[in-house]
Amino acid sequence: MSAARGFPAMEFARRWQAAQAAMAREGLDALLLTTEVEIRYYTGFLTRFWESPTRPWFLVLPSSGAPIAVIPSIGAHLMRQTPISDIRTWAAPDYADDGIGLLSETLREVAPKAGRIGLASHIESHVRMPRAGLAALDAALADRTLVPDAEITWRLRMIKSDLEIEKISDAVASADRAFDRVSEIAGAGVALSDVFRRFQILCLEEGADWVPYLAGAAGQGGYRDVISPATDDKLRRGDVLMLDTGVIRDGYFSDFDRNYSVGPPTDAVASGHARLVDAIDAGLEAAQPGATFADLFYAMAQIVMPGGDPSDAGRLGHGLGMQLTEGPSIIPSDHTRLEPGMVLTLEPGVDMGGGRIMVHEEDIVIRDDGPVCLSRRQEREIRVI
Amino acid sequence: MSAARGFPAMEFARRWQAAQAAMAREGLDALLLTTEVEIRYYTGFLTRFWESPTRPWFLVLPSSGAPIAVIPSIGAHLMRQTPISDIRTWAAPDYADDGIGLLSETLREVAPKAGRIGLASHIESHVRMPRAGLAALDAALADRTLVPDAEITWRLRMIKSDLEIEKISDAVASADRAFDRVSEIAGAGVALSDVFRRFQILCLEEGADWVPYLAGAAGQGGYRDVISPATDDKLRRGDVLMLDTGVIRDGYFSDFDRNYSVGPPTDAVASGHARLVDAIDAGLEAAQPGATFADLFYAMAQIVMPGGDPSDAGRLGHGLGMQLTEGPSIIPSDHTRLEPGMVLTLEPGVDMGGGRIMVHEEDIVIRDDGPVCLSRRQEREIRVI
Repeated sequence: MSAARGFPAMEFARRWQAAQAAMAREGLDALLLTTEVEIRYYTGFLTRFWESPTRPWFLVLPSSGAPIAVIPSIGAHLMRQTPISDIRTWAAPDYADDGIGLLSETLREVAPKAGRIGLASHIESHVRMPRAGLAALDAALADRTLVPDAEITWRLRMIKSDLEIEKISDAVASADRAFDRVSEIAGAGVALSDVFRRFQILCLEEGADWVPYLAGAAGQGGYRDVISPATDDKLRRGDVLMLDTGVIRDGYFSDFDRNYSVGPPTDAVASGHARLVDAIDAGLEAAQPGATFADLFYAMAQIVMPGGDPSDAGRLGHGLGMQLTEGPSIIPSDHTRLEPGMVLTLEPGVDMGGGRIMVHEEDIVIRDDGPVCLSRRQEREIRVI
Repeated sequence: MSAARGFPAMEFARRWQAAQAAMAREGLDALLLTTEVEIRYYTGFLTRFWESPTRPWFLVLPSSGAPIAVIPSIGAHLMRQTPISDIRTWAAPDYADDGIGLLSETLREVAPKAGRIGLASHIESHVRMPRAGLAALDAALADRTLVPDAEITWRLRMIKSDLEIEKISDAVASADRAFDRVSEIAGAGVALSDVFRRFQILCLEEGADWVPYLAGAAGQGGYRDVISPATDDKLRRGDVLMLDTGVIRDGYFSDFDRNYSVGPPTDAVASGHARLVDAIDAGLEAAQPGATFADLFYAMAQIVMPGGDPSDAGRLGHGLGMQLTEGPSIIPSDHTRLEPGMVLTLEPGVDMGGGRIMVHEEDIVIRDDGPVCLSRRQEREIRVI
């Protein structure tokens, strides 16, 4: 049984008010949002049209009341299906003025002279508009200043509502069912590119709306890389096949992987895999509200690299939600505290020698009384195909 | 028969040299590239990992020789499979310095004091790195200046090599075969969300590596929007169903749509569709080397809105290649001249009254002696399911 599509208007009103309370604390008169995830967070505006880089899109959140959309006219119909009623459009692309006049006018309206307008500036962010357009906007703001947004949207997004968690759970369940069917599509002699193509079909059959992410690899006793697209190389007995997917349900991601031994695993592969699952156990034990992301890192690092230098361990997981990867990061320098409503991945890796690795990942949610695994926990025994 | 994967090293050397010749003309000492498409254009670095917004990635093209990659260590293995040998990495995310130190050092090495470093600033571009990071970079460059990149990469990408055109043709052929099978998956009573899911499966079955874009709509006698994701509404007799997809083959996109009448079309739908195909005819006739994109616009606009105000027609097509939409744009203000090797979409729309529209799209390549349609031309008669 899947969650209903979309959100009640209340969900967005709650987000606006939470952001506005933070803006008041930080002395910001407005937020300017330019990226897909920021705009969708405050409006529910969901479209794959962001795949087109052509047009800039803007949302302005004033210090009170609803946001104002300043968008290309091609998006007006879809934006009217959201709780946003003040929708200002231009015919993009416009080489003379691609929305900057309309946007600066809107910002001058909501922010007083000497006002401060927050724009994302922090790690993992970027500003999605042409650099020349941003300079023109700066000049047109007449006494108002673009300042860092105090990470307001970024931090609000870290805590998911129950409705958001339901959507993530749906995405995770689709991927879980697809992973259970990998023996139908993969085995010795099958090209990795065919495995990738067929696995995406499984994800769609099992309920994914679309499949924005699939990476993986295969190699004898482990693999060298976790971000590659498929080669046409054929799977061989003794390979470890890893598939890491992020599927979408109603705008929310899953992000976890599964490892498969092609034929019976070697002892090294069997014990490497068991160690990864032990690291997940340690991570789950540590993932209590109030612990830090650094605590989580060390809990898993001591299993996957006992006696090693933890700084070589990389990132052992991250936030998850409207994006495949979100903050915070499970690294030694992240001292963010776990809070109920956070959804994250645990993603330990082990060094298999000779430049080979194995990586395992689960998706979890933090509840008042501890973590709950959203993905169906993988056993210590590696799956065999 | 599909094109071989990847490119020979020569293809990249040619791109570097073409950019470097333009840099010399423009007085630029280096280019700084920050987005997926820019970095892939000069390296062949192809991964779906860009779906993760966490890490910034940089490529530096000096005034001569090969580019230098300044990237998160997670990408080193895959970057080593490209023609790039100077690969400098850091363990991202690093909250203290997320690559800026390494990048500014690299830029100071390739650009002399008082040197000028080109960074994308033009329409359809953005800079993919945190705003705070860009400010820190600016400060660390010590006398070198970040200036607009004179649109060098953007303009080079407009002219495709024969190898690029082969890849686009493969993507287009996959989508064409999927469109031919829509009657297997869609008809009265089927929910649009199921049609979307199943159509993506068809694209994968027919050879797409992945399906980054699918939008569409259905409505009685026309639809209201071309960028929406699927609703759970069921198709009804009398609906026009439009599916617009962008599929990937080896990193290159198709982008075209097809319309289907659910049951026999009304006269209005039949003649609207015929008019769209007539507009494509007019576009093909106008799409000769030396004509401008504005010429192309007016050739199609006079068919789809005879006597109307062309400024209401929107964009009637655009460049196509490594991205779903690229420049130039088929709009009245684009005076770029068509050149052999350009690949573009022709995308006229007609107003069906009552807020409803129909849009039709084909993919074409400009050759020395005129345009060639890459997609299999749709007949004047709308397809019926």
